[in-house]
Amino acid sequence: MTSPVPRVRRTSTTLADGRELLYFDDTEPYVSGVATRRLDDPRPLPDRFAPVVDPDGASHPITGPEMRYDVLTGEWVPMAAHRMNRTFLPPADANPLAPAKPGAAYSDGEIPAEDYDVVVFENRFPSLMTVPGVADEVSGLNGEELYPVRPAVGRCEVICFSSDSTASLASVSPGRMRTVIEAWADRTTALSALDGVEQVFCFENRGKEIGVTLHHPHGQIYAYPYLTPRTATMLRQARAHRERTGRNLLRDVLDAELRAGVRIVLESTHWVAYVPAAARWPVEVHLAPRRDVPDLPALTDDERDDLATTYLALLQRLDTFFVTADGDPVPLPYIAAWHQAPVREGRDDLRLHLQLFSVLRAPGRLKYLAGSESAMGAWISDTTPERIAARLQELGR
Amino acid sequence: MTSPVPRVRRTSTTLADGRELLYFDDTEPYVSGVATRRLDDPRPLPDRFAPVVDPDGASHPITGPEMRYDVLTGEWVPMAAHRMNRTFLPPADANPLAPAKPGAAYSDGEIPAEDYDVVVFENRFPSLMTVPGVADEVSGLNGEELYPVRPAVGRCEVICFSSDSTASLASVSPGRMRTVIEAWADRTTALSALDGVEQVFCFENRGKEIGVTLHHPHGQIYAYPYLTPRTATMLRQARAHRERTGRNLLRDVLDAELRAGVRIVLESTHWVAYVPAAARWPVEVHLAPRRDVPDLPALTDDERDDLATTYLALLQRLDTFFVTADGDPVPLPYIAAWHQAPVREGRDDLRLHLQLFSVLRAPGRLKYLAGSESAMGAWISDTTPERIAARLQELGR
Repeated sequence: MTSPVPRVRRTSTTLADGRELLYFDDTEPYVSGVATRRLDDPRPLPDRFAPVVDPDGASHPITGPEMRYDVLTGEWVPMAAHRMNRTFLPPADANPLAPAKPGAAYSDGEIPAEDYDVVVFENRFPSLMTVPGVADEVSGLNGEELYPVRPAVGRCEVICFSSDSTASLASVSPGRMRTVIEAWADRTTALSALDGVEQVFCFENRGKEIGVTLHHPHGQIYAYPYLTPRTATMLRQARAHRERTGRNLLRDVLDAELRAGVRIVLESTHWVAYVPAAARWPVEVHLAPRRDVPDLPALTDDERDDLATTYLALLQRLDTFFVTADGDPVPLPYIAAWHQAPVREGRDDLRLHLQLFSVLRAPGRLKYLAGSESAMGAWISDTTPERIAARLQELGR
Repeated sequence: MTSPVPRVRRTSTTLADGRELLYFDDTEPYVSGVATRRLDDPRPLPDRFAPVVDPDGASHPITGPEMRYDVLTGEWVPMAAHRMNRTFLPPADANPLAPAKPGAAYSDGEIPAEDYDVVVFENRFPSLMTVPGVADEVSGLNGEELYPVRPAVGRCEVICFSSDSTASLASVSPGRMRTVIEAWADRTTALSALDGVEQVFCFENRGKEIGVTLHHPHGQIYAYPYLTPRTATMLRQARAHRERTGRNLLRDVLDAELRAGVRIVLESTHWVAYVPAAARWPVEVHLAPRRDVPDLPALTDDERDDLATTYLALLQRLDTFFVTADGDPVPLPYIAAWHQAPVREGRDDLRLHLQLFSVLRAPGRLKYLAGSESAMGAWISDTTPERIAARLQELGR
């Protein structure tokens, strides 16, 4: 196989309101960096940390998002109700992820370049954000010790997989996918180093069925100031397994899947995709490296090259999982979630894997999360993992 | 206040396929039991536990639903892919919860009475079911020790709140609501006594936004053979709180809410409704008794009477929470979940409360559970508990 490894050039710049934006260029002449270089954001955005001035002239310092500790579950809940500078809003029908139009003065969108390969920037309205001067301290909500509150520090970034608004991640070239992987790894390393960040999560939401209104191919990267509930739960399970057996849980799962064979969807030199034995979504597949690796930055070049082609093959299969009565494939609405080991703990117990799943049960039919799932967290599956795997295997033949 | 306590008559009967159906009649002449008594189900349903006969004549014993243990999360996942007798399906446009038409031969629906007050019956296609002769034992999936499997024993019941298909739970009389409470308490006691049942969950899903296609006012009752994830989590939190403080966590939460006042929605003699300090849904309210009580059967007659009117007041307020641009109230899609102490543990640590919440953010706008919520279990709230409470308080004035 010819290696699709690109030369990636990373260029960091700053948007008008102070947010960071990074270009990851993989193709001569490094479009966003050179040929149509236009690194300045010409929009009249106020600095996002500048004090907010009320209509009556009163000035208030910015407060970032806050999170509250849910004593019933032990989980932190960020609340997106902070005071921010929000004077500039793009028109409702605009695509803020498209490249700027040549010669346009401003307000084309978030990306001040006339073309780009892959770009990452801080979300303008983040749920998690570190505000300079706001101390990262726990206090009691209005003095109530039972209800801890804390600034929701961290960072939320957007990643655009292509400058072509009609593309999808499944349709990019292996070289471009390789650049996306490079960007995910870069962001994981960079965000892991931020004060207070405990976990970095690269993910993609796709499809109106899960509320995505912007069809430009993009994903998100969240840097959480806590272990997310699923990660905390997996870590607890992995530690109990280590205590009982001396082994890594996710490694044992991969080995068990390879042994069973029946739920294996595809295998490459460095990667294995399988439907987990207790899959709970109507479509669900996990993609794991053969080597024990905590996160994306720990992957070798060979593993990244192989991931680019393997991930594309998997995504392309998923887009033919369902067909309409007329035989047309149904682009799958999905959530693609990279589970990585946390920054500071569980590095030997949690193991990198992608969890890719869909709420679609059939064309036009959704799985709803009603009382059992939403109130009790008690999942009921409408299918079996073996049925999901059989369909994905059939599509690979 | 005049007590709406009805004389409730409970009549147990059996449907044609062997499922149990119970009438809870509160009004003379006890319609379903006497005036239009018709307890026999005339449908040609095969016994649900009779062997399934294939077209080629081969006979197979019934297998009930199975559940698999998810090693990554420690949760059981029932899978609805068992072999059952499913020869009879009502027409797609029928309402199987409506009373039978007078004189109709059969197939009017699930309830063989020409009228009823409140009725409960076993779900025809349950996710949880105990099949006689199937041993409740854990084994490894195809011999794989890492993947425990077990019969998904237990029971799933449907409860109809009214025989009027155009009614809603919010529109029934206090007396009828009292009968519903009586039925919930009865079912909790009865299902708690079944072999293998660890937890009983009474709930209502309402609205097409959460996938409810049948508009007849009804709820469900699940008897799980395991602690649900939310209950297990709350129990862990409550035990840690008890260890640290010597006190009951949910009692302390109620006291803290009464102290803070700002999130209190309504108070009655025996009940308090409040928006929890870390509410995560766009609309969420908890309703708790003032007295420490593990479950619905433990409520006194006075507490049940008071609950009937308080719950109705709360539901009626929720149905005016959102109004359209024209000022019309929007019936709230919601999940109403009764959290009860499990059957065998945590009886002193978990405390009865109703959690009532909605995915609606505004008329026509839903909160979607995308990557952060669905993959990581990490909730981000789009509002604050105080805003939700302020709206509910305003509606009570």
